[in-house]
Amino acid sequence: MARRRIGLWLIGAKGGVAVNAITGLIALKKGLTGPRGLVSELPLFSELDLATWKDFVVGGHEIRDISLVDAAEKLQASSGVPSPRILSRCRTEFDRIEQNIRPGTVLNAGPTIEQLASAAVRRKRENLRSVIRRLQTDLQSFRDEHRLSEVIVVNVASTEPPTATDRLPDRWGALNRLLDKPRGPHMPASSLYAIAALDLGLPYINFTPSLGSSLAAIDELARLRETVHMGRDGKTGETLLKSVLAPMFAQRNLEIMSWVGHNIFGNMDSQVLDSPSNKRSKVMSKDQLLGQILGYQPETLVSIEYIKSLGDWKTAWDHIHFRGFLDTPMTMQFTWQGCDSLLAAPLVLDLVRFAHHARRAGAVGSLDFLASFFKSPYGVEENDFFAQFSRLSNWACEVVKR
Amino acid sequence: MARRRIGLWLIGAKGGVAVNAITGLIALKKGLTGPRGLVSELPLFSELDLATWKDFVVGGHEIRDISLVDAAEKLQASSGVPSPRILSRCRTEFDRIEQNIRPGTVLNAGPTIEQLASAAVRRKRENLRSVIRRLQTDLQSFRDEHRLSEVIVVNVASTEPPTATDRLPDRWGALNRLLDKPRGPHMPASSLYAIAALDLGLPYINFTPSLGSSLAAIDELARLRETVHMGRDGKTGETLLKSVLAPMFAQRNLEIMSWVGHNIFGNMDSQVLDSPSNKRSKVMSKDQLLGQILGYQPETLVSIEYIKSLGDWKTAWDHIHFRGFLDTPMTMQFTWQGCDSLLAAPLVLDLVRFAHHARRAGAVGSLDFLASFFKSPYGVEENDFFAQFSRLSNWACEVVKR
Amino acid sequence: MARRRIGLWLIGAKGGVAVNAITGLIALKKGLTGPRGLVSELPLFSELDLATWKDFVVGGHEIRDISLVDAAEKLQASSGVPSPRILSRCRTEFDRIEQNIRPGTVLNAGPTIEQLASAAVRRKRENLRSVIRRLQTDLQSFRDEHRLSEVIVVNVASTEPPTATDRLPDRWGALNRLLDKPRGPHMPASSLYAIAALDLGLPYINFTPSLGSSLAAIDELARLRETVHMGRDGKTGETLLKSVLAPMFAQRNLEIMSWVGHNIFGNMDSQVLDSPSNKRSKVMSKDQLLGQILGYQPETLVSIEYIKSLGDWKTAWDHIHFRGFLDTPMTMQFTWQGCDSLLAAPLVLDLVRFAHHARRAGAVGSLDFLASFFKSPYGVEENDFFAQFSRLSNWACEVVKR
Amino acid sequence: MARRRIGLWLIGAKGGVAVNAITGLIALKKGLTGPRGLVSELPLFSELDLATWKDFVVGGHEIRDISLVDAAEKLQASSGVPSPRILSRCRTEFDRIEQNIRPGTVLNAGPTIEQLASAAVRRKRENLRSVIRRLQTDLQSFRDEHRLSEVIVVNVASTEPPTATDRLPDRWGALNRLLDKPRGPHMPASSLYAIAALDLGLPYINFTPSLGSSLAAIDELARLRETVHMGRDGKTGETLLKSVLAPMFAQRNLEIMSWVGHNIFGNMDSQVLDSPSNKRSKVMSKDQLLGQILGYQPETLVSIEYIKSLGDWKTAWDHIHFRGFLDTPMTMQFTWQGCDSLLAAPLVLDLVRFAHHARRAGAVGSLDFLASFFKSPYGVEENDFFAQFSRLSNWACEVVKR
Repeated sequence: MARRRIGLWLIGAKGGVAVNAITGLIALKKGLTGPRGLVSELPLFSELDLATWKDFVVGGHEIRDISLVDAAEKLQASSGVPSPRILSRCRTEFDRIEQNIRPGTVLNAGPTIEQLASAAVRRKRENLRSVIRRLQTDLQSFRDEHRLSEVIVVNVASTEPPTATDRLPDRWGALNRLLDKPRGPHMPASSLYAIAALDLGLPYINFTPSLGSSLAAIDELARLRETVHMGRDGKTGETLLKSVLAPMFAQRNLEIMSWVGHNIFGNMDSQVLDSPSNKRSKVMSKDQLLGQILGYQPETLVSIEYIKSLGDWKTAWDHIHFRGFLDTPMTMQFTWQGCDSLLAAPLVLDLVRFAHHARRAGAVGSLDFLASFFKSPYGVEENDFFAQFSRLSNWACEVVKR
Repeated sequence: MARRRIGLWLIGAKGGVAVNAITGLIALKKGLTGPRGLVSELPLFSELDLATWKDFVVGGHEIRDISLVDAAEKLQASSGVPSPRILSRCRTEFDRIEQNIRPGTVLNAGPTIEQLASAAVRRKRENLRSVIRRLQTDLQSFRDEHRLSEVIVVNVASTEPPTATDRLPDRWGALNRLLDKPRGPHMPASSLYAIAALDLGLPYINFTPSLGSSLAAIDELARLRETVHMGRDGKTGETLLKSVLAPMFAQRNLEIMSWVGHNIFGNMDSQVLDSPSNKRSKVMSKDQLLGQILGYQPETLVSIEYIKSLGDWKTAWDHIHFRGFLDTPMTMQFTWQGCDSLLAAPLVLDLVRFAHHARRAGAVGSLDFLASFFKSPYGVEENDFFAQFSRLSNWACEVVKR
Repeated sequence: MARRRIGLWLIGAKGGVAVNAITGLIALKKGLTGPRGLVSELPLFSELDLATWKDFVVGGHEIRDISLVDAAEKLQASSGVPSPRILSRCRTEFDRIEQNIRPGTVLNAGPTIEQLASAAVRRKRENLRSVIRRLQTDLQSFRDEHRLSEVIVVNVASTEPPTATDRLPDRWGALNRLLDKPRGPHMPASSLYAIAALDLGLPYINFTPSLGSSLAAIDELARLRETVHMGRDGKTGETLLKSVLAPMFAQRNLEIMSWVGHNIFGNMDSQVLDSPSNKRSKVMSKDQLLGQILGYQPETLVSIEYIKSLGDWKTAWDHIHFRGFLDTPMTMQFTWQGCDSLLAAPLVLDLVRFAHHARRAGAVGSLDFLASFFKSPYGVEENDFFAQFSRLSNWACEVVKR
Repeated sequence: MARRRIGLWLIGAKGGVAVNAITGLIALKKGLTGPRGLVSELPLFSELDLATWKDFVVGGHEIRDISLVDAAEKLQASSGVPSPRILSRCRTEFDRIEQNIRPGTVLNAGPTIEQLASAAVRRKRENLRSVIRRLQTDLQSFRDEHRLSEVIVVNVASTEPPTATDRLPDRWGALNRLLDKPRGPHMPASSLYAIAALDLGLPYINFTPSLGSSLAAIDELARLRETVHMGRDGKTGETLLKSVLAPMFAQRNLEIMSWVGHNIFGNMDSQVLDSPSNKRSKVMSKDQLLGQILGYQPETLVSIEYIKSLGDWKTAWDHIHFRGFLDTPMTMQFTWQGCDSLLAAPLVLDLVRFAHHARRAGAVGSLDFLASFFKSPYGVEENDFFAQFSRLSNWACEVVKR
């Protein structure tokens, strides 16, 4: 079989998640690392004809003025990852990928993100339609230049503030018309990237809590263009544990009285989240699932705070106060010390492989079976991790059978 | 429908688990407490015709010289449970149940347990067959006196040292013959109780790590008498969490390098476990499941230590050292502060209800569908808690459909 | 020697700290409990002629409409303390003390505290001078009625919002004149109580972060009236640990990069602190000492959040990120699970005994040697707990020698 | 002033502590790192005329067959320290120091340590006297070759099993005679090194729990030769925290009911400690100080377990169960994640500087003022860290004054 050539287009191409995803991809291609952390490498999925690591060509959008090599070294200095040993083997590829990275947009991304952007990006005076056109041109050039059979767009950029969506139309036609208005709707950058990709028929994955493709109108666009999308907010640490532990409490009929989660870390994501409005998007995404799993709403508290010294090492402390037999209160606490972008990066690669496979198998619209990867999966009420994971394994079984 | 009358026969009837199960049962009958901690009270099982709390009559065997009231008050003083408010409402019933408690046996239960026994129990010079006969007489008298349709025997006594079982016969006939030999096999007390019950056709549940009915020959006896049994070692705290968390690491392809668990508590169970040989039974039961869930054997360490000041409040600290993407080591730690006997007690009541229902529905032999309640479920390889729980919910669905 | 009769006047006489201090005092008088938690009962102080528990008569101010018995039972129900056994032995004394409790004031105490007050307290339309006079009448009546040689006033009321103090005069004469102005200064309730007490020559202890007697002008008043005072903010849990651990890091030359402390609890104090402005007083008091001990300012974060289910059990998680030899980052974490008002209550009794003794020995003004009891000790820069404690033991040595 | 030339002779010269001490010394000489972790660099000691880093020449004894460079790289691979950046700058010096390292002895060091030794070391058939002579020859050659004004010997080798010392003589004369007997006393290697050094008038520091110079007879030898010594067992992590926290509980009159400490790590030290007899030395040293600080003996439990995946990162979990006012039980827990040899290494350098200075100032015998560095300081009852540290600062003040 001729080698497939698949584009992986990262929005936020020089952020921590992207840097680790790119480094990991190179290391996997070169056999410098193993399958750890990659869901798609589980034996469960070995019969699927998933894309191989060598199939991928990387490009992306980025708003900051920094080289990929420098971004990687900065991450190394602040957080100790990726390891110097691996980094030193990736330089040539970094330089090659650098050529495929284009300036992104900060339109409606809020002041905190705007401040991160290069002067050139900030200075652009574009309206909604012209931004979308520019992004599409970048995607098409990338596809053409590298003769790619597919380009999959993944949003791993910083979290935008929440967007009021109640006055936005539910249909693509209506939304599309608004994009031409001189005073168009408050459509955040993440959604403009989504529209740009999906309108070209390219899959779009929203790994962040930003709005992205979560509007009904944009879902309609995906279906009209017969392509796929999914989101939102990768489930990597504390929330993953919530979706694992809460079902246990539920199935043992132990009543959770309160669940408090404090998260501290010091990467750029947390710096952006330190702005109260951007943080709101994240906390909403982290806090809602307990009620859905338990069937009642316990007291909850979630905080995310920027502590520079921790770099990319997100440390979470959760305190779970529950009541058992004879109404006796008991306590479970956990601490999680994980490297945030390294937990996220392999999931980005997994999502791209699964989305690529699903699309080839004819899927259209949002990809429910990927729910286990997200804190707030599009169109899926189920928040129990293992129930979500069953959807993934069932999908794999069915695909193989066909 | 005429009220059912079901016997609940507790081996170790004045130990912490029994005291809390009895107190809870009384409190449930009187409406003093709610369904918290009871799996069988989940909406999932609401369509099953489970026995109600009022159906149960309690009796049991006990080796110590203490009244039920004193045992409960001692537990209250050392551990704060059951609450004084509840205890004060249970005294009359305690006195009534006291009448149904008979001296147990310490035959082959090891020196640590023997030391706990009353002089009267220790002084008995019985052989294997005569012990079994005495226990059966107790069970039959209880059934007859209270006109019970069923008596379900649950072992909640202290943990015995491990028994070498490789030279014991696999068939009931052969084992039965050995019981008459003057120098019969080293058959521990827990198994003699099991034989006594099953031989009478009564269900037997082994909530402890002791041998109980786990021999193939005793399983054959259960089938010959067309009754049911299950065990062993109730899954209440740290091991429950292992069976919940390990599948998450597996499904995210995060390699567990080491999993260390330290347990400290100060109840009588832990006092018995402080004897190295008795502890071995427990640690084996707690330590094996990781390899089965993960498919490889990480470094593990499990300790259980007696710390008197903690009373029944088992505190566990687990340190999980795992490796993610790009081989990066990360850490999760948890502490669990649970009242051990209060976590166990409702499961005893659940098991009795489910076993009673299964038997009425014609089940024979070991009850696989109850695997989620046990650290080392008889005849079940699956240790993933949610996979085990699915068996329970599937069973319930099928039973309801019939 | 004739028995001394000393008044203990509690501001916030039915709050958690007061209820536990009162219950403890009764239990100590009756020999129901031992010296645990009481600094003044250490062998180190055995040669001091401290007041005995029987010497004390309790009274106080309270703004809420609740009986002392009900307040104690509410605390018992929510937090399990004081124990039912002790409580049942204290009822008669509670009723007697109830007679000595008078309505307090909420003048300038902020809206959160005002909402807690009874209608009668809220309805009072008093100016600064008339409040002070009323409080003084209460104190004098208490002293006269019970023929007390001394009355010591302790503020254990809810935390007020911070007060801007930069425009307040530094001299008592000037401040005193302002109190008569129709539009007098924004002098919070805690300071009015302090003025009322000190102006009568009565010792005043500020156990809260509120302003109290911390103004230079009020210190002058204390000196003019030849009495003593001290504050502020009792050091009971997380901050105590900071003042113990930070010196260790300093003396081992380990650089603290960040120190994060999250506190959760659900008593009334925390409910008041849930209001952002009231919380500010507390966080300021908890957060400043690190810089002073270390000689440089690490990153710090302190949060205090209301979690109702925890009642009076304050749980703190602290994460200390430090750098050792060869610039290597390391981590210490601790969790503290203490009953907040039970940690505070004995210190209130200690402070009263020490202040009483110091005054008899001729002390005037703020009592530096009590610094180890406070998060923000008046006029003391030293925040190292052991250095502070040395002041206490040195004071005791000198007093004994004289 | 002419440059001083001081020998630092490390016993266990290629173990983790030594490798980090050597690396740190080189890095300090080259200005690659700062004073973090070094007590002797505190401003408090700035007026002392301490040796500078450039004054030191390193040599030592080692029983294993490994190069210093390989030992450092192995440590880097397993534990991430020292950093690759620093290591790459130290190679030349490593090679130079390699020339100064001589084969040690495993005489009476127990089978676990013997197994680590090279064939050449194991094959030596020496008696007590001939070992001492060989070690002395090595020390003298080192001193002569490098024209050193002083050589300070520090034991950082693996922990030996405890030695029965009750039948050993208390006087040096008697002990010395025994060393010539064909069947001499069971004098462990650590003590032979001590005798070799002290007999030459060289200072000896015992950083391990091994016997070393802790015998009265060896102390007499030190005094006879007018030199200094100190030990034993460097206080770096969990025990340091005990000596800091226990005084706080004592001074607040909070009764410690139980203190449980579990330590896990995977360096060579812990591998040796995994042998029960070697571990006993360590646990004794860690467990005794609580009773001395508190004045009563709480329940205690200390475990040290080998978990390979952790490498040099010692993780300790301590659970402190204490009782406060009104006899209410409360809990403090901490976890400590420190790099063991990196916590120890700077203390080795500190001890050498302080011992060198003290000797020049005429000190003889054991150096009490260094108690704060040790778990079981020779001849010092005081275990309160801050009280111990006061001795150090008082010493410095007096030395400066003179």
